Amino acid sequence: MSWIEATYHLRANGDARTRALAIAIEQSIEMPPEAVDDAFVTEHILGQIVATDQIAPGLHALRIRLSAATVGDDAGQLLNMLFGNSSLHDDLTLFDVELPAALRTALGGGPRHGLAGLRQRVGADARALTCSALKPQGLPPEELARLAEAFARGGIDYIKDDHGLAEQAYSPFSKRVPACAEGVRRAVATTGHPSRYVPSLSGSLDAVREQLRILCEEGLDTAMVTPAIFGLANVQQLVRAYPNIAFFAHPSLAGAARIDPACLTRLWRTVGLDAVIFPNHGGRFGYSPETCRRISKAALSAADNLAPAVPVPAGGMSVARAAEILDFYGRDVMLLIGGNLLAAGNRLTEATAEFVETVRRHSETQAHV
Amino acid sequence: MSWIEATYHLRANGDARTRALAIAIEQSIEMPPEAVDDAFVTEHILGQIVATDQIAPGLHALRIRLSAATVGDDAGQLLNMLFGNSSLHDDLTLFDVELPAALRTALGGGPRHGLAGLRQRVGADARALTCSALKPQGLPPEELARLAEAFARGGIDYIKDDHGLAEQAYSPFSKRVPACAEGVRRAVATTGHPSRYVPSLSGSLDAVREQLRILCEEGLDTAMVTPAIFGLANVQQLVRAYPNIAFFAHPSLAGAARIDPACLTRLWRTVGLDAVIFPNHGGRFGYSPETCRRISKAALSAADNLAPAVPVPAGGMSVARAAEILDFYGRDVMLLIGGNLLAAGNRLTEATAEFVETVRRHSETQAHV
Repeated sequence: MSWIEATYHLRANGDARTRALAIAIEQSIEMPPEAVDDAFVTEHILGQIVATDQIAPGLHALRIRLSAATVGDDAGQLLNMLFGNSSLHDDLTLFDVELPAALRTALGGGPRHGLAGLRQRVGADARALTCSALKPQGLPPEELARLAEAFARGGIDYIKDDHGLAEQAYSPFSKRVPACAEGVRRAVATTGHPSRYVPSLSGSLDAVREQLRILCEEGLDTAMVTPAIFGLANVQQLVRAYPNIAFFAHPSLAGAARIDPACLTRLWRTVGLDAVIFPNHGGRFGYSPETCRRISKAALSAADNLAPAVPVPAGGMSVARAAEILDFYGRDVMLLIGGNLLAAGNRLTEATAEFVETVRRHSETQAHV
Repeated sequence: MSWIEATYHLRANGDARTRALAIAIEQSIEMPPEAVDDAFVTEHILGQIVATDQIAPGLHALRIRLSAATVGDDAGQLLNMLFGNSSLHDDLTLFDVELPAALRTALGGGPRHGLAGLRQRVGADARALTCSALKPQGLPPEELARLAEAFARGGIDYIKDDHGLAEQAYSPFSKRVPACAEGVRRAVATTGHPSRYVPSLSGSLDAVREQLRILCEEGLDTAMVTPAIFGLANVQQLVRAYPNIAFFAHPSLAGAARIDPACLTRLWRTVGLDAVIFPNHGGRFGYSPETCRRISKAALSAADNLAPAVPVPAGGMSVARAAEILDFYGRDVMLLIGGNLLAAGNRLTEATAEFVETVRRHSETQAHV
């Protein structure tokens, strides 16, 4: 039988080993081990402590082995086994996960498109990618379409919906997406640059399938999901059912303080998400440069033997910071700037073009990693 | 236009009003308000501060009004608008939500069965309900069926799967559920008490629909979901599509420290979940009596004009504590005791019968609330 190794961070001054044992039981058999008289359960299902290490005063890393057999090939069940009940302890964080190779494959085997596919879609070779967001929500379809067209005329690579855009009376998916897709097509016919529109999917799996039907009808090949809201098992099913679509992951509701965001990035990449959006340091959210570096590494690292996903730092970024961000992440990155570009108003296309040019030129100066 | 009122708890020493404004923007238009030149967006979509109150040193309650129009009737989108990006701030908790009545109805209108339906299924009038759990995972279907039958012979009301039971090679749903259902039917034929078996649903919406097909084929009418893993929009779709099934909510992955568990209970009840499991105080989890009282109230309260859902305290409870738990919650409750009953081994049926009798007798002594 094969084992998953989960690392939890525990903030506590007491006996870490006792807590580790409690977690090993909670995340596996969930009953007193002495009440189990089945040898298979005791040997192959009951969680095991690998090690407990104090890594700072009052902070312990608990490494626990969990049976891969309890997961099957269901990514929802993986989360259930990794952090289901233990998420209810407020002194505990799921910090990292090592999955056996066979389980990684069963769960999705990683991005079908990822970094290479998202570069190829927009004819970029080794440079950093660019992205912006359609907002605010509340605008009618034709206004969003006007913004999408202006972004595309500026030569940006990806134009994603704000994750707040959903099935709203003032802008339903079936009106909004064809309008924006057409706006982008019009711009692409002028610029020659194959800018991609990335609609945000929302609702149940059935609702999302209907949205994907419209998306495919419009000739689009990229979409965004919010795995923490939609459910990872449902994401997994989309990835399986739509092999030609590249999927962006949005961190909405991801409660990153309780599941380490780099750990979550690895899980999302494993089930096949192609690009992972996260809040960059120095923006609206409290992530440190160190956390951002770990997220980027979790998306790109060769360690898991999966295709690289694209790290997409975002959240209050500005064009003025583009060079600094590129210095930090290198060229294997997509820069997502929304509000700062939209604030240009009538100069949206020009501001976009400046952003695009900044990234292109900076990537040229960066040595191959 | 109508408004949702969300209350956030912020742990910070700085200027709470500035943070409240940032959250009002983040959870609505997500861009600088001065860059918006659309009057509809500014008046009807942009979030508004209702009040900020310091409720303890370093702790602020931020009351923010969010547009109901951004939600439509999608419960996933509701979570996105309430706490999507803001969940990424580690000093912020979503504490409470007031939904306008029309939105409550659109989201599901609350339990179809709830407290009254779950009492009626097992022929209970006003007494507290009893429940236990099939575990450990790793057992083959016939062993789980043996336990289910023993519980039912003890006269327990509800026998739920451990939330860890899923599609596992050693015990697939299609083998496990018919076996357990049959075990319970056999016992019911003897005892005359209509004990109910409650299978746990897992995987994608499609996988769950197939599981529900099997469940209905076995004549079962009660099932358990894990909304935080499965996705609330998908739960909503189940509730709509299966009006005859009563649904239990399991708190797995609910990250209760970041979304207040009473707040989550209200949301779950709104979309139609009938019974809400949560960790009781004094068990394996750190919930206080006060938190448990708030959860119970969120399930039962008449305030939202929804049918009451059943509060189900659980998590390391024992038969010895039954009287104390009943004194705490009253009779509008379901007591869930798993490992402590299973530890009785060969005396499982007798231990179950004692539990059942304790609850029955105690409920009789409790005055009508």
